[in-house]
Amino acid sequence: MKLPPVLENAHAQIVPALRSAFGALSPELRAVVDYHMGWRDAKGRPVEKQSSKGVRPTLALLATAAAGHAPDASAVPGAVAVEALHNCAFLLDDVMDGDRHRRQRETAWVVFGKGMSTLAGTALFVLGNATLLRSDSPHRHEAVGLYDDTFATMLAGQALDLEMEGASEVSVERCVRMTEWKTASLMRCAVTMGAVLAGAPAQVLEQLRVYGESLGVAFQARDDLLGIWGAPHETGGRPPGFDLKARKATLPVAFALEERSAAADQLREFLLRPGPGDAEVARATELVEKGGGRERTAELASSKVTAALTALDSLDLAEDIRRGFAEIAAMGRPDH
Amino acid sequence: MKLPPVLENAHAQIVPALRSAFGALSPELRAVVDYHMGWRDAKGRPVEKQSSKGVRPTLALLATAAAGHAPDASAVPGAVAVEALHNCAFLLDDVMDGDRHRRQRETAWVVFGKGMSTLAGTALFVLGNATLLRSDSPHRHEAVGLYDDTFATMLAGQALDLEMEGASEVSVERCVRMTEWKTASLMRCAVTMGAVLAGAPAQVLEQLRVYGESLGVAFQARDDLLGIWGAPHETGGRPPGFDLKARKATLPVAFALEERSAAADQLREFLLRPGPGDAEVARATELVEKGGGRERTAELASSKVTAALTALDSLDLAEDIRRGFAEIAAMGRPDH
Repeated sequence: MKLPPVLENAHAQIVPALRSAFGALSPELRAVVDYHMGWRDAKGRPVEKQSSKGVRPTLALLATAAAGHAPDASAVPGAVAVEALHNCAFLLDDVMDGDRHRRQRETAWVVFGKGMSTLAGTALFVLGNATLLRSDSPHRHEAVGLYDDTFATMLAGQALDLEMEGASEVSVERCVRMTEWKTASLMRCAVTMGAVLAGAPAQVLEQLRVYGESLGVAFQARDDLLGIWGAPHETGGRPPGFDLKARKATLPVAFALEERSAAADQLREFLLRPGPGDAEVARATELVEKGGGRERTAELASSKVTAALTALDSLDLAEDIRRGFAEIAAMGRPDH
Repeated sequence: MKLPPVLENAHAQIVPALRSAFGALSPELRAVVDYHMGWRDAKGRPVEKQSSKGVRPTLALLATAAAGHAPDASAVPGAVAVEALHNCAFLLDDVMDGDRHRRQRETAWVVFGKGMSTLAGTALFVLGNATLLRSDSPHRHEAVGLYDDTFATMLAGQALDLEMEGASEVSVERCVRMTEWKTASLMRCAVTMGAVLAGAPAQVLEQLRVYGESLGVAFQARDDLLGIWGAPHETGGRPPGFDLKARKATLPVAFALEERSAAADQLREFLLRPGPGDAEVARATELVEKGGGRERTAELASSKVTAALTALDSLDLAEDIRRGFAEIAAMGRPDH
């Protein structure tokens, strides 16, 4: 997937700041993070892999600009913090979910062990906190509060996710709430962080919050579609049907279960049996599609992208900033 | 073990504050924390177990008093935060070390799963951060910085600990550093936290820091002794030799290995073999004792308790405050 120009441009500003900030970790933890970020291989040798797309730190920089400030050095701590939190969540979730592949490589815990990966992920969050606390923005303490609240919400969302594992009944409402807590809250944090640090007025913050929250749900809905119908090159190396094989209660599944049809009953049975084979996964994939799960999740993603863009209409933004927000929003479209 | 009066007295102030603060967690995470704290059983029914001794929050309250302030409501957020961090570390470490017993009960992960326990532990840290950030002390941001730095150090210490697992060669120096990072840093944080929130002068902070750091090493040294020679009622239900069975490189082992004797060589061999039986553990226990590991660890604990108390000599403390610090320091003595 080719990255939109706004991400390419932000990269040059973000990556050196990340490398410098993450360099403060102790050697044991740094090895894990350097590997996870795609900066070093499992043996500690430098590599150059395009690891993160940098959506969230770029949003933080754009938000500073949206608040009427040039996205200069003062915006960078916010960008570093949200990217630290994003990768903290990856490291912790991969351990908990037992996922073995991400970004076309083995996940960090496969290489360094579950304990070390958990420590490295947690250390990234703490590093983000410290980075904000030491920034020179007069609004840094408000930013730390936002950052902490966001992580607390994400943890509650992941707990909801774990609790839903292996459940044969998942309501759309519960699944959407989990998405809002677990992933949309981080997107919302990313897009408000820069504005908070820049001291943006409440009305600007509110519109950015709606943009971030809506886009976060769209990204997750798109991810959930890829988790069932995505090709390995779109999912960091995961086989199609991956989420169903793991019997994850994602949005397409929740929509299909809501139908109360014979197909929904069969899907419910599928979710109750651990360790399904490939044929069963293929059959479940059909059931989700037949139950409207694919279509309704795609509709949700599209409508949330539209909601995100609409939220920005009332803001007085420079043309290139608006274009940047639009380029990122487009990445949430199901057909992107 | 009967608690010293200073802990009994602080209890009434600390426990309600902890219950109120920890009540902000989402229901899924709260169930784990309530169980871990000994407030509810595995089925969520209220119980009254003396869970934590409350050493660290009591130190935070004493430190506020040492800074010349009454340990009133403004000291409580610091006490809550350090107790949150202490229990965060327990929850995370038990998952990583696979420990099944703590405080005479099954550890939280045995009941709720490793993922949920990790989330609950992490959420406690974040809660502590938020508690400090919302306190009304004008020095709260300094306190947050101390709190974050402490957790970062603890994570680096736990990473060092994981890396040492299964190693047959552990220097005393490395083991002491691990202890300083992993456990003494939290004791130091506890005893400076209250003083930081009260705006204590640098000289008071410095002496409290030495007290906390020294006492932290003493507590760990005593814990390491109990991990090999402790009776189950002293170790929360763990069998004697527990740490050797897990082949943990604790202080007594590191001291014994330093001897470069035949006994040390046999101990080294023991550490290389996973899953030792009871007879092997008993034999290794003898080897550690023969190598001077028990005696030198006890000496270390005693000397650190003395150093902790000496650090307070230059401070002008009310008699009851000094007695409180002394009662807690005595708990670090190997023969306590």
